[in-house]
Amino acid sequence: MTQFDRRNISMMMDFYEMTMANGYFGGENTNTRVAFDVFYRRNPDNGGFAIFAGLREVVEYVENMRFAADDIEYLRRQNLFSEDFLRYLADFRFKGDIYAFPEGTIMYPDEPILTVVAPLIDAQLVETAILAQINHQSLIATKARRIVRAAQNRAVSDFGARRAHNMDAATYGARAAYIGGVVGTATVSAGQIWNIPVSGTMAHSWVMFYGDEFAAFARYAKVYPDACVLLVDTYDVLESGIPNAIRTAKEILEPLGKRLKGIRIDSGDLAYLSKKVRKMLDAAGLNDCKIIASNSLDEFTIASLLAQGACIDSFGVGERLITAKSEPVFGAVYKLAAVEEKGTFSPRIKVSENVEKITNPGLKDVYRIYDESGHAVADLLASFNEKVDLRHSFRYVDPEKPWKNRAFPENYTAKNLRQLFVKDGKRTRELPELTDIRAFVQKQLDGGEIWEEEQRFENPHRHYLDMTPDYYELKMSLLHETRKQHGENL
Amino acid sequence: MTQFDRRNISMMMDFYEMTMANGYFGGENTNTRVAFDVFYRRNPDNGGFAIFAGLREVVEYVENMRFAADDIEYLRRQNLFSEDFLRYLADFRFKGDIYAFPEGTIMYPDEPILTVVAPLIDAQLVETAILAQINHQSLIATKARRIVRAAQNRAVSDFGARRAHNMDAATYGARAAYIGGVVGTATVSAGQIWNIPVSGTMAHSWVMFYGDEFAAFARYAKVYPDACVLLVDTYDVLESGIPNAIRTAKEILEPLGKRLKGIRIDSGDLAYLSKKVRKMLDAAGLNDCKIIASNSLDEFTIASLLAQGACIDSFGVGERLITAKSEPVFGAVYKLAAVEEKGTFSPRIKVSENVEKITNPGLKDVYRIYDESGHAVADLLASFNEKVDLRHSFRYVDPEKPWKNRAFPENYTAKNLRQLFVKDGKRTRELPELTDIRAFVQKQLDGGEIWEEEQRFENPHRHYLDMTPDYYELKMSLLHETRKQHGENL
Repeated sequence: MTQFDRRNISMMMDFYEMTMANGYFGGENTNTRVAFDVFYRRNPDNGGFAIFAGLREVVEYVENMRFAADDIEYLRRQNLFSEDFLRYLADFRFKGDIYAFPEGTIMYPDEPILTVVAPLIDAQLVETAILAQINHQSLIATKARRIVRAAQNRAVSDFGARRAHNMDAATYGARAAYIGGVVGTATVSAGQIWNIPVSGTMAHSWVMFYGDEFAAFARYAKVYPDACVLLVDTYDVLESGIPNAIRTAKEILEPLGKRLKGIRIDSGDLAYLSKKVRKMLDAAGLNDCKIIASNSLDEFTIASLLAQGACIDSFGVGERLITAKSEPVFGAVYKLAAVEEKGTFSPRIKVSENVEKITNPGLKDVYRIYDESGHAVADLLASFNEKVDLRHSFRYVDPEKPWKNRAFPENYTAKNLRQLFVKDGKRTRELPELTDIRAFVQKQLDGGEIWEEEQRFENPHRHYLDMTPDYYELKMSLLHETRKQHGENL
Repeated sequence: MTQFDRRNISMMMDFYEMTMANGYFGGENTNTRVAFDVFYRRNPDNGGFAIFAGLREVVEYVENMRFAADDIEYLRRQNLFSEDFLRYLADFRFKGDIYAFPEGTIMYPDEPILTVVAPLIDAQLVETAILAQINHQSLIATKARRIVRAAQNRAVSDFGARRAHNMDAATYGARAAYIGGVVGTATVSAGQIWNIPVSGTMAHSWVMFYGDEFAAFARYAKVYPDACVLLVDTYDVLESGIPNAIRTAKEILEPLGKRLKGIRIDSGDLAYLSKKVRKMLDAAGLNDCKIIASNSLDEFTIASLLAQGACIDSFGVGERLITAKSEPVFGAVYKLAAVEEKGTFSPRIKVSENVEKITNPGLKDVYRIYDESGHAVADLLASFNEKVDLRHSFRYVDPEKPWKNRAFPENYTAKNLRQLFVKDGKRTRELPELTDIRAFVQKQLDGGEIWEEEQRFENPHRHYLDMTPDYYELKMSLLHETRKQHGENL
């Protein structure tokens, strides 16, 4: 780990995790194991899917979780916690298991993307940090993919650090954006930690410092003859910036046998300017000089620019990516799904007057169902370790139309999406490199597995989340039981 | 500092800071001093002001900035930087000065809220982290104030950690929210670092774990008889939650001589439910039991609830506060204002086709002008160390109506808003405690200094940013000079 990562985030939790933990402690339930599911209810920006990101940091967090003497002392000063509990915390190590989708998996609402199976207190204490990590990185990865899609194979880079919600929103946000498909980041800490390609050339201040734009460009070209990208909008793109950039190419770079790699436009009408600039560069024989655009871009402005025929080769995207400005909240929640009673996990359901807030109870598996061409046609909830064998026609329940008798044809296949990543508090497997996670995202989305119809921005196809008949029965019976117990209003 | 803070964030910067620094290095300009201003252009949510926050972390950052061996090695691998520069970085310490508004100052667009005066490289390297810190904390402090205002003297607490953009967005966000006026936070790390009051009781999982709602409430009441707040919406607020809460008050707490402190409603129609609940609690003699509401609240939903007569004593505000959901980007920028030439600072201006993007050049002071009753009537830009003496009528220029001959009456007063916080890389003064910063915000906003008309949400009065005649002249002459040099389009 780098210096950026050398910190203890164990105290980054909601206070109620501690009041509950202390409340559970010492009773008969201290060692009872429970299962909590992480899931979310709605895709951001009315999209058709989201990207699961942040798992590596969740694993590192639970492995490193511990409370130092000053943490304990702080808690003692709140005058709420028993000394026995504080002593217990001093020796606390997370002892649970974590099942999850592999990082980068395309995910959909209501499915358990991560499940913590752990002693009650352990499971409660990790709630806030797991949610913050998964919510943040999944939010940015999903947003990045939208922007990359809009850019239609042009390169998109993350330029967002200065508008991020503080240091690790910039850093982990760059990681998530890379998972979502950007080609690189300007954020050095992220480049360093995860080996993400970094890029960056000059700010307006470089040009302003020298005062004379050509002098500023010439200095830059001499220092970086092999990587010369010039920012051309400090004074006037067409009147000053581009003529000076061309002069730099001719007078400084070409005598060295070098080419001007690119120019960047950071203000003004990017559609109009880029077209004019392309003509000027081409007329000067700089056909290989790339045009890079930045300035409050997102998937909507990029789509509009390209629809207008803008001549832009790559995009630097800042604030609207790193804050997911159009929808900056990813709403994953952490809900109790099961409690161990006499050696078996007994399911729990959270009911609500809002149907969509009723949880899926119990320990479960999530299968992704593929047709004979490898397209993912639906996801399927099953009870944990329930047999899902698609060698024969397999009956399932669409929970929104349970009266229909449906079945997957016999040549469909099912993949169990969840894997065990942490067992007894320790990782069970090597976590993949970031480039592999990024490639996995691309493979699912660009390789035909996820329908194009789920990826479009306007009214995307909704992915089905079906249930095995057994699992559907379990949920219905629990629902009826709870209504009987707590009121027919539910 | 706590464990949360023990990390080196020096590499959290845009890569172009490094390419520029390496480009400046070794030339005649390595030791040239420059001034960069931090300012922003628009108040979030079309408000009338913003709150300056994050200064303490900026000071700590520049004091601790250094590059470790693995940082240098990472940079070397980019194959762009000279060995001399890398050696220089290994010994790098920030040697500049920082002038700024005291933290918590009410601020307005276009004024230099913070200025870095430093050797060129030092000033460039700190850009990204200073902006990220100021942007994030100012955003959340300003949003928090809006929510606190909407709550009309009811307590507002920050419940946002799980939806924050990662760990320090939760932690520094809680700090900023406290500056903006929330009474406390649920985020333990923030409570620990800055001594912010923390609160928190139970999640739905507590009730679901016990299965029986009364059993769950009873257990909680026994563990926390002096701080018993019950979450009543796990099953049904009116049919189950409140009856069980009343029973807990009567059967568990009252025999111990204790009172039920409060109940929390986290779903459903908060206006309707809170009124019903108030009646039920009062009818049971629990008039002192507080009603706490949470669930996707912000200034708009809170104002609506109170307009409907909701009986809510305090609000827990989560995702919409900690992400500033309605407008999650605070757009402060960092612009070159002056360059030292032969011992004096020569002003620089950034021109643009967009008038509002033209910068205010040079080293300057910002004065806040008060009328005889202590109301802040305007801010005034002056050249650095220019004499601003309001004992006599003082002529100024409104830059939007420069043809008008205007003057402050002679009984007005002026306060220089900026102070020197860092000199040669070291802090020059004790930084105030967080509670003092918070009190300073309240004093300005509630003590009559900032007009109520600037604080309303709808069409707030726009605070004037005037200029001394000398400063206005300077700006105009630079503008003309630049247009002559770089084209009349500007």
